[in-house]
Amino acid sequence: MTAGRILVINPNSNETVTAGLDEALKPLRIAGGPAIACMTLTEGPYGIESQRDVESVTLPLARLVEAHTDTDAFVIACYSDPGLHVCREATAKPVFGIQESGVVTALSRGDRFGVVAVAGRSIPRHLRYLRQMGLEARLANERPLDMTVAETASGADTFDRLVAVGGALVEEDGADVVILGCAGMARHRAGLEAALGVPVIDPTQAAVAMAVGAVALARANALAGTPAAP
Amino acid sequence: MTAGRILVINPNSNETVTAGLDEALKPLRIAGGPAIACMTLTEGPYGIESQRDVESVTLPLARLVEAHTDTDAFVIACYSDPGLHVCREATAKPVFGIQESGVVTALSRGDRFGVVAVAGRSIPRHLRYLRQMGLEARLANERPLDMTVAETASGADTFDRLVAVGGALVEEDGADVVILGCAGMARHRAGLEAALGVPVIDPTQAAVAMAVGAVALARANALAGTPAAP
Amino acid sequence: MTAGRILVINPNSNETVTAGLDEALKPLRIAGGPAIACMTLTEGPYGIESQRDVESVTLPLARLVEAHTDTDAFVIACYSDPGLHVCREATAKPVFGIQESGVVTALSRGDRFGVVAVAGRSIPRHLRYLRQMGLEARLANERPLDMTVAETASGADTFDRLVAVGGALVEEDGADVVILGCAGMARHRAGLEAALGVPVIDPTQAAVAMAVGAVALARANALAGTPAAP
Amino acid sequence: MTAGRILVINPNSNETVTAGLDEALKPLRIAGGPAIACMTLTEGPYGIESQRDVESVTLPLARLVEAHTDTDAFVIACYSDPGLHVCREATAKPVFGIQESGVVTALSRGDRFGVVAVAGRSIPRHLRYLRQMGLEARLANERPLDMTVAETASGADTFDRLVAVGGALVEEDGADVVILGCAGMARHRAGLEAALGVPVIDPTQAAVAMAVGAVALARANALAGTPAAP
Amino acid sequence: MTAGRILVINPNSNETVTAGLDEALKPLRIAGGPAIACMTLTEGPYGIESQRDVESVTLPLARLVEAHTDTDAFVIACYSDPGLHVCREATAKPVFGIQESGVVTALSRGDRFGVVAVAGRSIPRHLRYLRQMGLEARLANERPLDMTVAETASGADTFDRLVAVGGALVEEDGADVVILGCAGMARHRAGLEAALGVPVIDPTQAAVAMAVGAVALARANALAGTPAAP
Amino acid sequence: MTAGRILVINPNSNETVTAGLDEALKPLRIAGGPAIACMTLTEGPYGIESQRDVESVTLPLARLVEAHTDTDAFVIACYSDPGLHVCREATAKPVFGIQESGVVTALSRGDRFGVVAVAGRSIPRHLRYLRQMGLEARLANERPLDMTVAETASGADTFDRLVAVGGALVEEDGADVVILGCAGMARHRAGLEAALGVPVIDPTQAAVAMAVGAVALARANALAGTPAAP
Repeated sequence: MTAGRILVINPNSNETVTAGLDEALKPLRIAGGPAIACMTLTEGPYGIESQRDVESVTLPLARLVEAHTDTDAFVIACYSDPGLHVCREATAKPVFGIQESGVVTALSRGDRFGVVAVAGRSIPRHLRYLRQMGLEARLANERPLDMTVAETASGADTFDRLVAVGGALVEEDGADVVILGCAGMARHRAGLEAALGVPVIDPTQAAVAMAVGAVALARANALAGTPAAP
Repeated sequence: MTAGRILVINPNSNETVTAGLDEALKPLRIAGGPAIACMTLTEGPYGIESQRDVESVTLPLARLVEAHTDTDAFVIACYSDPGLHVCREATAKPVFGIQESGVVTALSRGDRFGVVAVAGRSIPRHLRYLRQMGLEARLANERPLDMTVAETASGADTFDRLVAVGGALVEEDGADVVILGCAGMARHRAGLEAALGVPVIDPTQAAVAMAVGAVALARANALAGTPAAP
Repeated sequence: MTAGRILVINPNSNETVTAGLDEALKPLRIAGGPAIACMTLTEGPYGIESQRDVESVTLPLARLVEAHTDTDAFVIACYSDPGLHVCREATAKPVFGIQESGVVTALSRGDRFGVVAVAGRSIPRHLRYLRQMGLEARLANERPLDMTVAETASGADTFDRLVAVGGALVEEDGADVVILGCAGMARHRAGLEAALGVPVIDPTQAAVAMAVGAVALARANALAGTPAAP
Repeated sequence: MTAGRILVINPNSNETVTAGLDEALKPLRIAGGPAIACMTLTEGPYGIESQRDVESVTLPLARLVEAHTDTDAFVIACYSDPGLHVCREATAKPVFGIQESGVVTALSRGDRFGVVAVAGRSIPRHLRYLRQMGLEARLANERPLDMTVAETASGADTFDRLVAVGGALVEEDGADVVILGCAGMARHRAGLEAALGVPVIDPTQAAVAMAVGAVALARANALAGTPAAP
Repeated sequence: MTAGRILVINPNSNETVTAGLDEALKPLRIAGGPAIACMTLTEGPYGIESQRDVESVTLPLARLVEAHTDTDAFVIACYSDPGLHVCREATAKPVFGIQESGVVTALSRGDRFGVVAVAGRSIPRHLRYLRQMGLEARLANERPLDMTVAETASGADTFDRLVAVGGALVEEDGADVVILGCAGMARHRAGLEAALGVPVIDPTQAAVAMAVGAVALARANALAGTPAAP
Repeated sequence: MTAGRILVINPNSNETVTAGLDEALKPLRIAGGPAIACMTLTEGPYGIESQRDVESVTLPLARLVEAHTDTDAFVIACYSDPGLHVCREATAKPVFGIQESGVVTALSRGDRFGVVAVAGRSIPRHLRYLRQMGLEARLANERPLDMTVAETASGADTFDRLVAVGGALVEEDGADVVILGCAGMARHRAGLEAALGVPVIDPTQAAVAMAVGAVALARANALAGTPAAP
């Protein structure tokens, strides 16, 4: 009865990241639930690190969203939420940004959230965006891993570093829920949660979970012939 | 692979409300997804309208949550989110309140949210709680239906009244997403959305949708033997 | 001419705490002013440390408030302000919570207030409540003594620890007024004030002081046959 | 045992206002409690309506505070709280401003406060000061009487106008406690409270009530030979 | 000694708008001061009304800023401040957005600012941006002219409409300074200021005035051989 | 065509400070732009360090502003912005305070601003004023030099200390723009900017730059016979 289709777009052109998303979203592929497809924005830069990288994908994302008229919900899988508002303008279907979804999900799992960023330079951009969302009141702190993306990927030390930075968020900053501030760290989520003893949110999983719910509800109404209310 | 079980508790003792919840949650019962059970808190008052009503259910809810050790997530289905923090203390499983979930879901569907309350007297309690959540920055306004629960139930005029009040939230207050501020108006959600032209959030559906995602993710980790990260 | 009666309720069942309150309030027993009675909530837990402890006293407090129809004002003497709103619903007489009164009194004695908590685990609950009150803008910091209540009571080192923690609030966090975040530390107030060189607020004294004023004003009106204004 | 002395300073030179304060404070003159003296700042302007009026009294107030070394607490009885910070610098004794005290007292009597100003032109000054205090989150609204001080004094219509403006604060703006935004309307407090059905705060009474508590506590410590804590 | 060069970029391709900017900036072309050049972004849409219009100019603006290495400061002359952060990333020279400059200039001319928008649909985008800037605390209100750009240009009724909307901002919303929320209404600034009796800010003039100061200071340092401080 | 006259008032009586201002403002003396005169408030204290110092200059400043009817804009050159609102009441010409101007200018040059104060004791006064302006959301931190004014003047170590304190603001507190929190450190601005690698704002220069723009615009309107709009 539900079914439907969610499109998760990796706005960078790194196929390994897309494959990682695909793996991370397996638990949300429920038998009778919406299909979850992951795709790479081929026009995107190899990684989204600067404001220019962010701006370079906004219109390609909007065009891609417009083109997929058969899709029930979209997820933009980059923690900077590039192009979120132009994509929302481009379609009446729900569009989820992973930072936004990660933060609002964290708000329902703890009182003050900490964020683990990959690089320190993206933190000011994230804080500016938190202000835009009006959600800074419950931020405990955001701390960087201070690793290159390459180092993060090889991962030998990534988990140890996550535990150290996440631990500082919990012990020193008072966070009782932690968000992975990046689309590519989902494989560490459960382990980090066990290590820290507080909920850890992978933002792409959070966004897709919200999309699953939105699609299920929208399709039920469509089947019922929606405006049958009174 | 997912499965698992979500318990939705109606903290008042009105079985008709519970039956309505059960109906409203059908779209979220996805084949292969978590079972969604609705139950009535028999010790609860017939309706939750006063602060005393709120307080009267907090410990019964906590006991009930503690007793259901086989449940993967809980939803407290009253817009006052009674007992939310004591229930979270009582279990390590996720517990969702419907006001909290309704508001954070609305934050990902529009910029400023409006709330339709049943009775004007509950609005100050809701505003106080919004401040507690630190989420008042994006409230457009909350307006009451000014109907009795009985009138709401009979429903002859309920939908018209919802359209009038929701319309004022959109046109006069600038809301671009509307939350039904009550556990019992889900049957009007889709119709109101069509009438207003902006997303309308039923808070119980929003909470259960978040619970579906949380359960799917938690069970995947459990199956995988969680802390296998590095 | 004033007289009248204030009831100070210790919501835990520890009589030693009640006796300490009684002692701490002596300076506010003014010859012609309201009588100040302290009582123990016998149904209460031995200490209020968890959210469950908080919830367990809300209805007993409301019943107690309702039963004392001869009382002119109530003070709930626990820094978590348990049951404050349900008690206010239960009576038209003023009801004061000691955290609320301590904070608003501090706002009139300094620019940024620091709070000394007994245990670190209660700090998130206090911060959540500060947000609910909308009063977090002037919080310098809250720091814990990290002592057990038993250690606090024996007190050998309590004063030294208060000076250390209070000093950090003043020197490192910029507090220019300090609140004792507990109902049972009044005997250290004056000494700590002398040691720190900034005003130190005992929250129960602050609440009862506000109650004295409220009772004096209410009784004057009653004697005068209130609504004689125009 | 308490006794001590509170000096209430009317910063304008209108003796009728001072006499009104003296009358309004009768209920707070408790046998055994601090003496409450009211005095007129003879250098003050006849009324304090402009920013220049405010500035003209700051140093005279500080000198007056410095000169009264035998006084235990001071109250500056003008709703603009002129010179509050310079007076606090001039003495180690507590100094209370009536707007500050009125607002913090209102915070403990209701959730959202409304203010009745005499003249519309002072409202921006009051709002700026509320921001300075960090207390604007719970303001419902401030509305003017739009009467001259002369008209207010003659009073034929003052009470009716107070009921109308206070009613708008309650009914339209959601205030559940109302502050009289002026030092000279205490005689209407009780009547207005009866008419509106919500607590009405006279700010001078609120400030003196806080001063009574502060003096009682300070004198108890002094008698006890303060720093006898540990 | 000063001189230097400011480039004002109209991000839409409407040359009439650019010519209007050029005219509006005449008073800021001071003998001896920086040259002020206005140019049209030829790749831009004819008007910037949607989020897509905003996104379509961000990279062209960044490229243009990068190409003008001989320019001392840049002004992006559209009230949505498109591309502001990517342009700041693209150059070490100061870049001013006109909404940001208009608002911060208004903050130094009044206590609460009102904004006149051309179209109602852009108001949510402006409010979201105000939150991003953290500057919403002093917003009185934003109201739309509800005219098409074409109607605004012909202007027969534009001034009357500005007076009506500006008057509502002042009289009903309490604004004591008004911002023209558009790059193309500078010719009405002085007249509207006279009509309303409060300062009226043209945001492009405000931005260029800030740029004049920044250029003058930067060039003085360059001439002096900057880091000669100690 | 522009010309006109800006009066910069040093509210303390230290002529050396005035001479330093005069030197610091040279870059803003543009050939055809407004004359910039600096004067000493001879009634002022030798330095403005306490609240009493602040209050002592408010009325003298207002009188001085009223007396200079031939002046087009005023700048009060003390970081406490003494008398700003009474001066604005005293004249219809623009009056700029240097803290206000420094902060709003910083808001257009970076995302989070740091402030270097001379003395730690003035920081609470500055923070209180930031709250009054509603501009605290983007404060990274304020840190003191902890030097006497005399030490600052001799300057041997002043620059090194500025680099250390400014560096802490940038590296530890996340500031990306720094404000010199004092009227007398302009000679270090350019050097500090080079050393820190982020914009450094001298607040007097910022205020005068804003005044130059305001005067240029006001005089253009005056020449044109202002209200010629429609």
